[in-house]
Amino acid sequence: MHIMSNQAPSPTAFPGIDHVTLAGRENGLEHLSIWQQSIAPGGATPPHRHDCEEVVLCTAGEGELHADGRVERFSANMTIVIPPHVDHQIISVGKEPLQTTAVFASTPVGVWLPNGEPVALPWPT
Amino acid sequence: MHIMSNQAPSPTAFPGIDHVTLAGRENGLEHLSIWQQSIAPGGATPPHRHDCEEVVLCTAGEGELHADGRVERFSANMTIVIPPHVDHQIISVGKEPLQTTAVFASTPVGVWLPNGEPVALPWPT
Repeated sequence: MHIMSNQAPSPTAFPGIDHVTLAGRENGLEHLSIWQQSIAPGGATPPHRHDCEEVVLCTAGEGELHADGRVERFSANMTIVIPPHVDHQIISVGKEPLQTTAVFASTPVGVWLPNGEPVALPWPT
Repeated sequence: MHIMSNQAPSPTAFPGIDHVTLAGRENGLEHLSIWQQSIAPGGATPPHRHDCEEVVLCTAGEGELHADGRVERFSANMTIVIPPHVDHQIISVGKEPLQTTAVFASTPVGVWLPNGEPVALPWPT
């Protein structure tokens, strides 16, 4: 049992993306990883996919989800379910930072570009 | 891919506990369930355990975690990691409702009382 104070998201090598891992393998978990991110207006994740289920809880801001050849808008108090192996990209399209809590059914979390190249993340996953 | 507007937690058969399942098996997930709860001041979960990992994100209020023979306080912007098979109880001890997002590495989520009796939950898990 661990109780931890959340750190604030901090800048990463991905332009516009602040990140903190709230819980994952380093906290004794084997099947869950939980990230908090803030994406500046105009910022975006690279298009990418995982080999596990992901759920994104949007807590502030406005975003676009590009996936399956479609573009869908989302905003605070909305939840996105992303199946494994589906390429997706999240873009911050509002005037305020897009804030999300992302939950993964795996730890560490694997990330691949659409061309199959693995992405080495700069944070514990 | 599903994008859903979150429903607000609503009263349950558990006194003082409002609940909404943000995502789970009914949304196509196989390995994740995500709940949002609001526990009125003085309210509490029953002591219980799961057969999967759980992470509780506290977003507002103040709580006590009773587990492993210990009592620990937590409040907004804190994260709790609860291993499988560990009996635990959460009590709302502040003046405002305790608000949590609970993440489980399973769906549906199994719940047992400390005596081993299964708990039939009144919500989709």
